[in-house]
Amino acid sequence: MRILFHAAGHKPAPWLEGLEAALPQAEVAEWVPGAPPADYAVVWAPPQQLLDEQPRLKALFNMGAGVDALMPLRLPAATQLVRLDDAGMSVQMAEFVCHAVIRHFRELDGYEADVRAGKWSFRRPRLRGEWPVGVMGLGVLGTRVARALQGFDFPLNGWSRSPKALAGVRCFAGRGQLDAFLAASRILVCLLPLTPDTADILNRDTLGRLMPGGYLVNVARGGHLVEQDLLALLAQGQLAGATLDVLREEPPPPEHPFWRHPKITLTPHTSARTLREESIAQIAGKIGAMERGEPVAGVVDRERGY
Amino acid sequence: MRILFHAAGHKPAPWLEGLEAALPQAEVAEWVPGAPPADYAVVWAPPQQLLDEQPRLKALFNMGAGVDALMPLRLPAATQLVRLDDAGMSVQMAEFVCHAVIRHFRELDGYEADVRAGKWSFRRPRLRGEWPVGVMGLGVLGTRVARALQGFDFPLNGWSRSPKALAGVRCFAGRGQLDAFLAASRILVCLLPLTPDTADILNRDTLGRLMPGGYLVNVARGGHLVEQDLLALLAQGQLAGATLDVLREEPPPPEHPFWRHPKITLTPHTSARTLREESIAQIAGKIGAMERGEPVAGVVDRERGY
Repeated sequence: MRILFHAAGHKPAPWLEGLEAALPQAEVAEWVPGAPPADYAVVWAPPQQLLDEQPRLKALFNMGAGVDALMPLRLPAATQLVRLDDAGMSVQMAEFVCHAVIRHFRELDGYEADVRAGKWSFRRPRLRGEWPVGVMGLGVLGTRVARALQGFDFPLNGWSRSPKALAGVRCFAGRGQLDAFLAASRILVCLLPLTPDTADILNRDTLGRLMPGGYLVNVARGGHLVEQDLLALLAQGQLAGATLDVLREEPPPPEHPFWRHPKITLTPHTSARTLREESIAQIAGKIGAMERGEPVAGVVDRERGY
Repeated sequence: MRILFHAAGHKPAPWLEGLEAALPQAEVAEWVPGAPPADYAVVWAPPQQLLDEQPRLKALFNMGAGVDALMPLRLPAATQLVRLDDAGMSVQMAEFVCHAVIRHFRELDGYEADVRAGKWSFRRPRLRGEWPVGVMGLGVLGTRVARALQGFDFPLNGWSRSPKALAGVRCFAGRGQLDAFLAASRILVCLLPLTPDTADILNRDTLGRLMPGGYLVNVARGGHLVEQDLLALLAQGQLAGATLDVLREEPPPPEHPFWRHPKITLTPHTSARTLREESIAQIAGKIGAMERGEPVAGVVDRERGY
């Protein structure tokens, strides 16, 4: 069995060694143009040439949960596209989102700023019941995030494309229930896959439907958010603030207003990082299952886009 | 039945109204010197005079979880001292501690500072297995905090005066196992009651036993920490930082080094605030139980001090 590796921005050596150790029967190599045909490829943002030259791939493993960057490419018809479905990412996402939600709800940024200004301040505690959190996207990551937020007793709403049921979460589905979901939420967490259906879904109309003083946490893709609409809603005071881990252009250009906006906390796409050891273990497990003819999780429905 | 209320720093009106609504059969009044004898008192930092004038109190309800401020007072022998055992405090404590632990472990303060400086930075993800968290104090608050941290998959250690067992937590007990507990922990969370046994327990010797690059989160009492020892360990680099919600003197004097120490995050005793509605409901429930001759939770063992 031959496995190819190609991932922009990742040092290949530890991945090659890790995959070889996890799959001793396989020959693992970094992809180069003209490489002999392989059975599997492990990739991040591969060039079209790799796909064109490798028509016999049984599966293309994406080194992340979001496969939107792969969708514009032409894939061989028989090649399954498989995404990481957890590999240590869901706990990171739960951490990042809970940190952002707690920090805003408990006004910890404000308290810390007061202390730095020499002020020992008192703020009236907010009532948790008035701070329902809405989670958009209820896949592996969204479900884990919702569970983690439940651990802090927040009222929870969930929204997904197709109907889902999660204990203790008020679940809404489809465009028909989107407005009701937004109107019932004060903090909005976006964990949707980026598809033609969800691009620009965070805009003036949708964000404007949140409860007054709404707060946005976007940990999905920059393409979900219409940035100018967020700026307008923040300027009007309709939204109180946002934590953004993703942007349309990363890094944003130096003049981008999000770098130092006082109501925006920006982080450099770090909410859920691909962890090498966990990812290799998951990919090796899936290759083993596919070789035995067993089904694997995370196969992308190309029609749906995730 | 007569109930007295006296709480420095709290507006009495909403407490009096709340207690009256919850206990319609009771006469509720703010304490004044010379007030007629009452059956119960709800207090925060009461003067000795109140206790001397009220020898027939069946119970003195403390408006907080920590009763250390009451211990120097002479209480009537037959009066039970009862503390709040949760009343919405444990979820706040879980929030505050998880926020502090996640913020440090995930280097979110560093990422945010980088962004403010115009840098889109990359940091190698830390390995969770190398970041065991040790929780000192395994009462109602400590247990809830440990459970919340488990939700983020941190390896957990717990230390308490008497042996406890918590699923998934490596439990240590007593002075004899304190060094082993510290040596196995990298982030230390203090949730102990302040008693003569635990005063100054966070000092150069104990904090110096944490894993290299240790981090302290003190959400208990300022009297647990020897402040100069923390400063020395931070200066030496033996500790990486601290989040402190409590100090020996609150607010600290203007020249206190913690106000602007770059490795210390200071907040104004806000980790778990007394929530009026929850507290009134709990106190009313306990008064009802005591009137029916039933046992109540949170009765302080005066010998032990909590």
